[in-house]
Amino acid sequence: MYHSKITVKLRPSILDPQGKAVEHAIHSLGAAAVHDLRIGKLVEFDIDAATQQEAERITEEACKKLLANPVMEDYAFTVEKRK
Amino acid sequence: MYHSKITVKLRPSILDPQGKAVEHAIHSLGAAAVHDLRIGKLVEFDIDAATQQEAERITEEACKKLLANPVMEDYAFTVEKRK
Repeated sequence: MYHSKITVKLRPSILDPQGKAVEHAIHSLGAAAVHDLRIGKLVEFDIDAATQQEAERITEEACKKLLANPVMEDYAFTVEKRK
Repeated sequence: MYHSKITVKLRPSILDPQGKAVEHAIHSLGAAAVHDLRIGKLVEFDIDAATQQEAERITEEACKKLLANPVMEDYAFTVEKRK
C-alpha cells in the first residue's frame, strides 16, 4: 500500500482573498509581523498499487484531472510506501 | 525573515464528507485503488521575527487561536529561516 500527500497552491501571480482575510485576522490578534499569507489545500489518500510507479501515475492523474485547476493552481505530491 | 508552513487536518475520528466526495470523484475517473482520502488546509506565511523562537511562538499562537479548531482539528507546522 502506498500513501500520497498532495499540496495544491494558488499560483504566485493569482490573488488570494481568503489568505488576505486570514492575514488581517492574525494582525487583529496582535501579530503584525505576519505577511504574504497564502492558503492551499492538502489532500492525502492511500492507494492499493503494486508498484511505486503505478501509485505515482494514479496520483498525478488525480491531480491533473480533478484536484488542481491547471490555470490557477500548482500541485506537488509525495508517494510513500506503507505497510 | 522566517517562513511558516502549517498543515491543519481533521482529527482521524472526525468524518470528512468533503474527502469522501472527492474519493468518489476519483473512483469515477477509474482509480478504484484510492481509499481513505482526507482533505486538510495548508497555510503559509512569512514572519519578520528576530529569532526562530519568536517566529515559532507567533505561528503556534496563530494556529491555536485562529487556524485550527481544537475540538475537531490537529495542526502541525515548520518554521524555516529565509534570507
